[in-house]
Amino acid sequence: YSKDLYEGNEFAGVVTGLAWTAVGGEILFIESSLSRAKGDKLILTGNLGNVMKESAAIALQYVKSHSRELGIDDELFEKYQLHVHVPEGAIPKDGPSAGITMATSIVSAFTQRKVRSCLAMTGEITLRGKVLPVGGIKEKILAAKRAGITDIILSVENRKDVEDIDAMYISGLTFHYVKTVMEVIDKALLDEKVAHYREL
Amino acid sequence: YSKDLYEGNEFAGVVTGLAWTAVGGEILFIESSLSRAKGDKLILTGNLGNVMKESAAIALQYVKSHSRELGIDDELFEKYQLHVHVPEGAIPKDGPSAGITMATSIVSAFTQRKVRSCLAMTGEITLRGKVLPVGGIKEKILAAKRAGITDIILSVENRKDVEDIDAMYISGLTFHYVKTVMEVIDKALLDEKVAHYREL
Amino acid sequence: YSKDLYEGNEFAGVVTGLAWTAVGGEILFIESSLSRAKGDKLILTGNLGNVMKESAAIALQYVKSHSRELGIDDELFEKYQLHVHVPEGAIPKDGPSAGITMATSIVSAFTQRKVRSCLAMTGEITLRGKVLPVGGIKEKILAAKRAGITDIILSVENRKDVEDIDAMYISGLTFHYVKTVMEVIDKALLDEKVAHYREL
Amino acid sequence: YSKDLYEGNEFAGVVTGLAWTAVGGEILFIESSLSRAKGDKLILTGNLGNVMKESAAIALQYVKSHSRELGIDDELFEKYQLHVHVPEGAIPKDGPSAGITMATSIVSAFTQRKVRSCLAMTGEITLRGKVLPVGGIKEKILAAKRAGITDIILSVENRKDVEDIDAMYISGLTFHYVKTVMEVIDKALLDEKVAHYREL
Amino acid sequence: YSKDLYEGNEFAGVVTGLAWTAVGGEILFIESSLSRAKGDKLILTGNLGNVMKESAAIALQYVKSHSRELGIDDELFEKYQLHVHVPEGAIPKDGPSAGITMATSIVSAFTQRKVRSCLAMTGEITLRGKVLPVGGIKEKILAAKRAGITDIILSVENRKDVEDIDAMYISGLTFHYVKTVMEVIDKALLDEKVAHYREL
Amino acid sequence: YSKDLYEGNEFAGVVTGLAWTAVGGEILFIESSLSRAKGDKLILTGNLGNVMKESAAIALQYVKSHSRELGIDDELFEKYQLHVHVPEGAIPKDGPSAGITMATSIVSAFTQRKVRSCLAMTGEITLRGKVLPVGGIKEKILAAKRAGITDIILSVENRKDVEDIDAMYISGLTFHYVKTVMEVIDKALLDEKVAHYREL
Ligand SMILES: [Ca+2]
Ligand SMILES: [Ca+2]
Ligand SMILES: [Ca+2]
Ligand SMILES: [Ca+2]
Ligand SMILES: [Ca+2]
Ligand SMILES: [Ca+2]
Ligand SMILES: [Ca+2]
Ligand SMILES: [Ca+2]
Ligand SMILES: [Ca+2]
Ligand SMILES: [Ca+2]
Ligand SMILES: [Ca+2]
Ligand SMILES: [Ca+2]
Repeated sequence: YSKDLYEGNEFAGVVTGLAWTAVGGEILFIESSLSRAKGDKLILTGNLGNVMKESAAIALQYVKSHSRELGIDDELFEKYQLHVHVPEGAIPKDGPSAGITMATSIVSAFTQRKVRSCLAMTGEITLRGKVLPVGGIKEKILAAKRAGITDIILSVENRKDVEDIDAMYISGLTFHYVKTVMEVIDKALLDEKVAHYREL
Repeated sequence: YSKDLYEGNEFAGVVTGLAWTAVGGEILFIESSLSRAKGDKLILTGNLGNVMKESAAIALQYVKSHSRELGIDDELFEKYQLHVHVPEGAIPKDGPSAGITMATSIVSAFTQRKVRSCLAMTGEITLRGKVLPVGGIKEKILAAKRAGITDIILSVENRKDVEDIDAMYISGLTFHYVKTVMEVIDKALLDEKVAHYREL
Repeated sequence: YSKDLYEGNEFAGVVTGLAWTAVGGEILFIESSLSRAKGDKLILTGNLGNVMKESAAIALQYVKSHSRELGIDDELFEKYQLHVHVPEGAIPKDGPSAGITMATSIVSAFTQRKVRSCLAMTGEITLRGKVLPVGGIKEKILAAKRAGITDIILSVENRKDVEDIDAMYISGLTFHYVKTVMEVIDKALLDEKVAHYREL
Repeated sequence: YSKDLYEGNEFAGVVTGLAWTAVGGEILFIESSLSRAKGDKLILTGNLGNVMKESAAIALQYVKSHSRELGIDDELFEKYQLHVHVPEGAIPKDGPSAGITMATSIVSAFTQRKVRSCLAMTGEITLRGKVLPVGGIKEKILAAKRAGITDIILSVENRKDVEDIDAMYISGLTFHYVKTVMEVIDKALLDEKVAHYREL
Repeated sequence: YSKDLYEGNEFAGVVTGLAWTAVGGEILFIESSLSRAKGDKLILTGNLGNVMKESAAIALQYVKSHSRELGIDDELFEKYQLHVHVPEGAIPKDGPSAGITMATSIVSAFTQRKVRSCLAMTGEITLRGKVLPVGGIKEKILAAKRAGITDIILSVENRKDVEDIDAMYISGLTFHYVKTVMEVIDKALLDEKVAHYREL
Repeated sequence: YSKDLYEGNEFAGVVTGLAWTAVGGEILFIESSLSRAKGDKLILTGNLGNVMKESAAIALQYVKSHSRELGIDDELFEKYQLHVHVPEGAIPKDGPSAGITMATSIVSAFTQRKVRSCLAMTGEITLRGKVLPVGGIKEKILAAKRAGITDIILSVENRKDVEDIDAMYISGLTFHYVKTVMEVIDKALLDEKVAHYREL
């Protein structure tokens, strides 16, 4: 991952995640987009490994099976085809830690709700909605700060990893510890829609 | 598998299994979730090997071919898409020993019946419903106790493996030996539904 | 294959076969189960190699193309999905010698006819219904006897292999030599249905 | 291939071919069978390599595109599913030389016409219906004679290979040299149907 | 490729191409055939590599998107299934140089127009219809002459390769240099249909 | 890539890209073509690697989800099948840098709008429409100039790479730096249709 900066919250369906690579931490963007098409095949791009593809499938299933709580009309899953992409295509990506970012991205795409500003997140999703801890927390947090992020969502089980970091490295950052995917979505998505929202 | 604790029985479709790995025994969770969709394709995630994927297919077929005894309307298999997931995505998993756990998880998802508290299980499923013995019993039992499990379902053909274990290691554990998958489901699922059950 | 015993003829669709492995002969069970579903995709599980999967496809085609003689309504093939499983999932299995066992199992599932008691069989199936000889006869017969089998169906072309075995090893066994799959089914399936038969 | 003998012409859809293996020539049987099913997917079994599978696809296309000359109602291709099998499943088979045998087998299955007695054949099929020469002619002919074959169909371009064989080896054999698949079918299939023909 | 001779222009859908192999140039035949079937899946046989398969897909798309100019009713693409075969099945074939031959073959199949006599061609097709130059021109031309070809269609960008050949080797051959696939088809296909044309 | 020249803007759906290979820069052509067919499967040819295939999927999704802004009737995606090809078939191609060229090509195919003359482009596309920088800028620009290109579209994040090039090498070239795919399309496609446009 090249060194990216936070890019704002103008677009529905675009959420900032955190990755941990051989050369340190990085932010990455999860992009979800809908198009009118028959069937409900999930399209995944961005040079993703199998575990990361599975994360997207779990995130979509979570969103579908909680559509009522999330305020998404079930018919949208039939009427629209979902495509989830993770730039940059030349870089292979894998692992489960983008799970909650994918779920948030998908909900934003289907609701057109605006993503909270300057927010990033990392955590594995389970089908029942539990948020599991992930690795590389220190490197990911440093990368987030460098990129201009101010708020970070993590599993409560990653709290100890944050507390191990020297305070000077994390000044100015607010951590939001969560247990469930529903908490992630509540924290990450505003009730308002994006400025140029699409009528679904 | 990291060292997990029993996580309660709040959710329909979530059942605790036992795994045997290079570093000892472990508990794991089988999660089944339904979404409204055409067709009845089974979605499987969790970095599963082919034998474990086959276990899910056998479990689903068992449930479908015994729908009447289980009180499941056949139309639900057409109206809902089943997704079975086994956290944690980064860890490859394989083998037939989650078979009865998958069957129980699927029945719970389709009936919304609550899973018995503090229960774990391990055993291979066959299509006719016989429960076959599995390996690693000692390590699995130790892991279950450590995780807070009090009741364990096993094949009767694994009774001898339990009897070989020093009594002090298994004090406080109750073993339920079964011959059939229907017995597993009878023992594992309560007649009541989960608190926040979903109307299917 | 672990050392299994004959398990009775309570279930429609469950037929006992004979396998020949590196560690000697073994009995195995072929299980066929039907579920209501659109389409007629054949589901195969049990860690089967390609040749064994092909045997199942040939067996199913034989049954379909002889439905009238077998008393099976053609519509059942559309209304029900067939799943053929061979326990035990952890053990890879391959080869053509389960062909006639699979055909018998499939016919039993679609007719709910009871399988003759204490019977096992081994033989390759062809699409026209000829039964071809298979290898490992001596080891398979010893395993069958050990497991409690009394009657064995073989290709007439395997008669010479039986005659090569010392008589003391096969006392108490009755051999049924056949040329065609239809003979196998006539010998293996009783005209009565299983006790708890399913109305198809 | 084990040493097989000619097996008569009782069955529609069963035609005798000639194979050339590391241990000499062999006869083999091509079996075509029809079942009622939606769609027109071609099922191929018998441990076939890609080139041999392609031969079956070419043979089927030839039959479909010449249905009128062959007296086959086009609707049969929709109403029936075709399965082509080549016993024996344990032996891998490949190469294009079964092409005309497959075409003859398919036509016999769809017309229930009886195959000429004591006949075998070998030759590659092309989509336009030309019969191409194949290798191993001497070994194949010796195997055919040994198996009880009296008539052999070959490409005219294989005539020179026959003429190279010492006359004493081929006494009692009649060779039919052909240029087209239509000639093969005319020579190989009788106008009468098999005794127990199936009404399609 | 064995040493083949030109085989006439009796059949619609059969066009002569030129191949370049390790042992020199060769002619080959592209055969296109139509059968009545639902869907419009393209069937490709002849032991073709991926690049050659892509050439067929490009050729078909070119024909479909230029159906009006080519006088082909769009409904034919729905009503008929196209199969493109390149004999001889035992020989692997690859590369883009059969592209224009495939396009010509497909147009002839769908229009039943007769192919110009004693004609061969080689050239890569693009989706917009440009004809790209290909390699092995000298070897291909010598093979064409040897096979009885008198007219050869090439990309204008291969003219220089022809001019490099000693005149004595190409006496009696007429070269047709083209820029577009439409020119190829105009030169290669007569306005008349084949003698025994099929009513589509 | 052989050394190609710019080939004009006669065809809708054909756009000039820039590639960077082991032997230097190159221009290449992205060709999009539509045919009438059911479904909306995307056909991709040209010996493309997975990353380049993903670029095409992202480009198509971008076009579909921005159909209103682009003036494309959503029904066209159902009525027409899209095929994207990149000549020359013998050369493997991969990487994300053709993303914006593919998007432009697809829009031109669906609108029949003419491509600006003497224009080339290179840049990765994201699903939200951001244009990412790519590598090999110097080599690509030299190749573009050599091929007769006068205008080049690049990501603003590639401006620094251009400024590093010695001015004498880029005299006569105009650079258009963009942030979004929509800007690319606005700059690359004229409002007028191609001369022989197709009525969709
Ligand atoms: Ca990056
Ligand atoms: Ca909120
Ligand atoms: Ca764990
Ligand atoms: Ca109960
Ligand atoms: Ca066993
Ligand atoms: Ca009987
Ligand atoms: Ca043989
Ligand atoms: Ca005749
Ligand atoms: Ca040849
Ligand atoms: Ca003309
Ligand atoms: Ca080039
Ligand atoms: Ca404009």
